[in-house]
Amino acid sequence: MNTRDEALALDAADPLAHLREQFDIRPGLIYLDGNSLGVMPKATPARVQQVVAQEWGTGLIGSWNSAGWMDLAPRIGDKIAQLIGAKPGECVAADSTSVNLFKVLSAALTIARADAPQRMRIVSERSNFPTDLYIAEALAAERGLELVLADNPEELPALLDARCAVLMLTHVNYRTGRMHDMAALTQLAHAAGALALWDLAHSAGAVPVDLRGSGADFAIGCGYKYLNGGPGAPAFVWVAPRHAERFWQPLAGWMGHAAPFEFTPGYRPAPGIRRYLCGTPAVLSLAALECGVDTVLAAEAHGGMAALRQKSLALSRAFTALVEVRCAGFGLSLVSPHDDAQRGSQVCFAHPTHGYAMVQALIARGVVGDFRAPDILRFGFTPLYLRFVDAWDAVEQLRQMLSHEEWREARFNQKAAVT
Amino acid sequence: MNTRDEALALDAADPLAHLREQFDIRPGLIYLDGNSLGVMPKATPARVQQVVAQEWGTGLIGSWNSAGWMDLAPRIGDKIAQLIGAKPGECVAADSTSVNLFKVLSAALTIARADAPQRMRIVSERSNFPTDLYIAEALAAERGLELVLADNPEELPALLDARCAVLMLTHVNYRTGRMHDMAALTQLAHAAGALALWDLAHSAGAVPVDLRGSGADFAIGCGYKYLNGGPGAPAFVWVAPRHAERFWQPLAGWMGHAAPFEFTPGYRPAPGIRRYLCGTPAVLSLAALECGVDTVLAAEAHGGMAALRQKSLALSRAFTALVEVRCAGFGLSLVSPHDDAQRGSQVCFAHPTHGYAMVQALIARGVVGDFRAPDILRFGFTPLYLRFVDAWDAVEQLRQMLSHEEWREARFNQKAAVT
Repeated sequence: MNTRDEALALDAADPLAHLREQFDIRPGLIYLDGNSLGVMPKATPARVQQVVAQEWGTGLIGSWNSAGWMDLAPRIGDKIAQLIGAKPGECVAADSTSVNLFKVLSAALTIARADAPQRMRIVSERSNFPTDLYIAEALAAERGLELVLADNPEELPALLDARCAVLMLTHVNYRTGRMHDMAALTQLAHAAGALALWDLAHSAGAVPVDLRGSGADFAIGCGYKYLNGGPGAPAFVWVAPRHAERFWQPLAGWMGHAAPFEFTPGYRPAPGIRRYLCGTPAVLSLAALECGVDTVLAAEAHGGMAALRQKSLALSRAFTALVEVRCAGFGLSLVSPHDDAQRGSQVCFAHPTHGYAMVQALIARGVVGDFRAPDILRFGFTPLYLRFVDAWDAVEQLRQMLSHEEWREARFNQKAAVT
Repeated sequence: MNTRDEALALDAADPLAHLREQFDIRPGLIYLDGNSLGVMPKATPARVQQVVAQEWGTGLIGSWNSAGWMDLAPRIGDKIAQLIGAKPGECVAADSTSVNLFKVLSAALTIARADAPQRMRIVSERSNFPTDLYIAEALAAERGLELVLADNPEELPALLDARCAVLMLTHVNYRTGRMHDMAALTQLAHAAGALALWDLAHSAGAVPVDLRGSGADFAIGCGYKYLNGGPGAPAFVWVAPRHAERFWQPLAGWMGHAAPFEFTPGYRPAPGIRRYLCGTPAVLSLAALECGVDTVLAAEAHGGMAALRQKSLALSRAFTALVEVRCAGFGLSLVSPHDDAQRGSQVCFAHPTHGYAMVQALIARGVVGDFRAPDILRFGFTPLYLRFVDAWDAVEQLRQMLSHEEWREARFNQKAAVT
């Protein structure tokens, strides 16, 4: 892709191009932040309005049955299952990623240590998303266990030994976009007698995931990134069927009870994945999440995640090559892997001193990426709605911004709470 | 209140009557289920639409700052604080009631047992809402503690002794409407060296609550009942300032971190109540919750919770008296306390055999109450939008339904998942 016309030609030939029509992206906006908050599907406002004004406003309490609110969490879970190599009845949408991690890490530790109490370690990476590390740190403290962090992925295999209870990793790294080999690491964990727990926050809807095929034990993921579920959308939780009924998770709320409306005092967990529900589901947010998941499922008729993956790689390869050629000499260095097999659906560059201001200056030009401390410029490529011409134009805007040193402007250097 | 005209006259003289105009309740509907799911405020659809279509749809990731999404949880918490005798900065809206209970019960147990490890008991009631008991049961199992349940409230004082770590109660009982004396029981708990944790699910927005004045240690509550926050609205959590920074709760997600966007691996809890946040807040559901809370705060200019309480008691007294006189001989027996001081904002009757079908037959007549197993007909009185004529008409419909034995119809005897 050496000219803008070539980019336009690639879009014209793209069999997934029409999927962008599910969204209403304003002209001139190049949104490379779908890995932080996916864009709003066109269908969402009407669906949410229906839930608010009709199902709640008119149907009131009766809508728990008549509008199927009770089935939202498993129904959306079944849809997400299709995107992550799982089967119906294995996944539910609920709570936040952090809360779901607490549930499955509790389960994983209890199951892994049942016959091997000497396994005292949760193994993860220092570069894992912080909330995952915080939850693991808290659980380790509660249970008198140890959280051991690898400084880079290459150290992981050596940490998978008889002391390891659970290997807890995020499939695609939030800062670098580096993707682990889920099957290989799961196999190593199992060979060491440990269990493998995967955070799919930057994977679900972004790259093909095969939980069953890889032998994974537990997984969680985010609803508001590549699944386009809206700000703070509920997350999801998956448990391998062989483990699903071996544990009562400690967030033993009534929606995970075998018969929530019997109102009996003793906890009896529901069969299967439903026991990973806790409190009353957030119906409005779930309805929006379902609209988002449907936009990804719309690709199923056109090759599904495999086709999306091909487009994502083509986009990120083109973007990377263009930045390296056209923005050379500005101090940006590629952080994401060049190797397709090791890269998720984002491309990151580091700048030693001015990354934050550069991202802000680029946003002012209509190219929305984000900054991740301390030095990362992050560009997410959501193949569902991004075009090759977006990749081309993004690089051109980046080049102009850097050439004009716009990042020096004071307004781009004032840090806000969230970038 | 002996005639319908008297009821109409009471409504005409009611200084809170105009608060009903905040809602769009269809003519003929008498909704006595606001203690299960509050009605939709007129303001909610437009506000939710604004959040979806503008803040998310147009503002995208930038709305975390520009639309104040980061401040929603503490801002709504501050509003709820006004209704429960708390101060700004002491309460946040987040997660579900069950998840929040896990946080504060974890904290309460750790703090209570820090200097008194022999305190091995969580004391509660067998008739507490089941999800509270499930969470307590799970936590007790995790920590090797004991959950001790009183069969009736009179047994509680004797259980508050040197073995008790935490007294965990729901202020207003979900089945009977019986209300505890929060100050007296908290004082008894403290005298025994224990801490007091209150579930305000049926209290917040329904009865005056004075958390600070009563000396309470921890509280949680529900957003979708009397606070009109919508189906599955986020819940809230309050911690007495003297305890707020004594504990890192185990659901140590990034939103409870002192600097969430530093993305540093070690958990440093935020000061004060913010450390009781966990994952990314469910923005759509929080926006709807805020509209609901605002409908209750609208009463502040007209006497606030004290005035709402007077009206609630007048409604429930009138309803009870009318049922006892006009529906005598049909086998209904009052379960809620006659004594105003012991009754929340609901009135419950038991029927030994046909309670479920009776509730269904009454719903078919436009009077929506609910059934709580095994034998309770439950009628919630939300003074914010109910009228005296509603109480009158509800009894008249109940009387006719019972007289005609409509509950015998087969269609009213088929149990659905939720009633």
